[in-house]
Amino acid sequence: MSVTVVGSIAFDAVTTPFGSRERMLGGSAVHFSLAASFFDDVHVVGPVGDDFGPDEYAVLEGREVRTEDIEHIEGGRTFFWRGAYGWDLNDRDTLDTQLNVFADFEPKLSLESRSTDVLFLANIQPDLQREVRAQCEGARFVALDSMNLWIETARDSLIETIAGVDCLLLNDAELRQLTREPNLVRAARKIREWGPRVVVAKQGEYGSAMITDEGFFGLPAFPLETIVDPTGAGDSFAGGFVGYVAAHPDAELDHELLCRAMAYGTALASFNVEEFGVERVARLTAGEIGERVGELRRITSFSEKPLLLRG
Amino acid sequence: MSVTVVGSIAFDAVTTPFGSRERMLGGSAVHFSLAASFFDDVHVVGPVGDDFGPDEYAVLEGREVRTEDIEHIEGGRTFFWRGAYGWDLNDRDTLDTQLNVFADFEPKLSLESRSTDVLFLANIQPDLQREVRAQCEGARFVALDSMNLWIETARDSLIETIAGVDCLLLNDAELRQLTREPNLVRAARKIREWGPRVVVAKQGEYGSAMITDEGFFGLPAFPLETIVDPTGAGDSFAGGFVGYVAAHPDAELDHELLCRAMAYGTALASFNVEEFGVERVARLTAGEIGERVGELRRITSFSEKPLLLRG
Repeated sequence: MSVTVVGSIAFDAVTTPFGSRERMLGGSAVHFSLAASFFDDVHVVGPVGDDFGPDEYAVLEGREVRTEDIEHIEGGRTFFWRGAYGWDLNDRDTLDTQLNVFADFEPKLSLESRSTDVLFLANIQPDLQREVRAQCEGARFVALDSMNLWIETARDSLIETIAGVDCLLLNDAELRQLTREPNLVRAARKIREWGPRVVVAKQGEYGSAMITDEGFFGLPAFPLETIVDPTGAGDSFAGGFVGYVAAHPDAELDHELLCRAMAYGTALASFNVEEFGVERVARLTAGEIGERVGELRRITSFSEKPLLLRG
Repeated sequence: MSVTVVGSIAFDAVTTPFGSRERMLGGSAVHFSLAASFFDDVHVVGPVGDDFGPDEYAVLEGREVRTEDIEHIEGGRTFFWRGAYGWDLNDRDTLDTQLNVFADFEPKLSLESRSTDVLFLANIQPDLQREVRAQCEGARFVALDSMNLWIETARDSLIETIAGVDCLLLNDAELRQLTREPNLVRAARKIREWGPRVVVAKQGEYGSAMITDEGFFGLPAFPLETIVDPTGAGDSFAGGFVGYVAAHPDAELDHELLCRAMAYGTALASFNVEEFGVERVARLTAGEIGERVGELRRITSFSEKPLLLRG
């Protein structure tokens, strides 16, 4: 089966306390694709300009990501983002955003991308997400990410779009902002009333939490001594999470399976932040992922032992 | 065996989005004592004034907390704190602090309190913590909490005090502030170089993390739809955590045991915040605690299943 992702393909300029890159491959659809490529065939949909060349294609194709639906806009330039992180890596400053070819993006999905089993709507304008969702009628699992910009400027459209997907993945501050509920459990319930049966709160360095009809699941982030560049962590998480679902075409997508998907998402996100941009994930191996998921299980498990309490 | 705790005994005035209390029993030593009372005999050490009467003693004695070392200062008034929380319950405003009898507090431990098996130094001036620690030479496990005030005004003394304990429990922002390390893993390593072999980062609504010589352990907070009053959550956590250690006088305090202690701490903290002040924990039952620990295990566990990844 396969995963289709629609989102940004970008060049990023990033400064963190550990160094900087002036122009590296990035974008939500790219980070997602590379992470999901460990699980299933991935079709990536998004626009690029003349500056997007063989080196960039090579990174995606090195992980066998299907690039036929990358739309090359003649005479255009690729989406560009410049940001900087201080010591608190949960907080970043956007210094420059050049939409370029992304400004007039109209997603065009090939028949193959449309007939996907699993669809990830990365963070783009919610009307576009809804159009894409409508094109992928047969998808058995559709997940969506968004951001504060759309919550602020297109909330009604975003809620309408959310109503049509199975799973919402969002930063926890954005979940609160979107639902106007400061409490995560209540925020998730509200979202689930709108439509999606699965809500995943991305909590940055604190990990992630998921709420389904079977209840709550929480997982800390994988502990790292050095986080070089958090850019793309959320999309790598989504790639691992959604990829895991795609890798199980015949399984029931129950809570237990989705908990394991959270662990794979957590693992992929943790590799992503170890180096700048896609540098780490591009040369990641299956064995490393498996090992980290096992380690994550070990560092989040406690044994039960009977204890007679007083009173 | 027994636990001794030295810290504040207070009256709190608290306003949260869910209501307010004008004058309720509080203080770090009180929250700790009630939580720890489910595990072992607890001796509470701290000063009170004339306004501390039978109703307050009754709450502690209702949980069989040993109150002989509560020092009544004739003509004095009990420590008073007034605070308010907004919708973001991680953030609180202190509106008034009246140290009263706490200003000249010199901890006086009875022989019974001194010969304790386990000692918790709740958040008081670090010189005093060090004095108490010296009086409890025989304690097999000593844990310490502190706060930003002491990091800012008495950092050297605090570090000296930390050097003499087995376990530091601190809010994660304070851990960073104290160590000047933004990364939790590095911060914990620095602390462990100072002396303690166990470091616990309290992360508020995100849960907690522990680092020992055997590695990392992370646990989300127990998910609640309504958090009525977070005051005392950290001390209740400490009461559950340290209490669990005290309940195992003959066991090796290895990583696995301390992970279970974290689960009990998490459970106690979650009950504490369900109502104002000590209202919920004062009428808590052993059965409820056991159930919640089991539930916590369920919502943090994921099963492993072999999966052939690509690449």
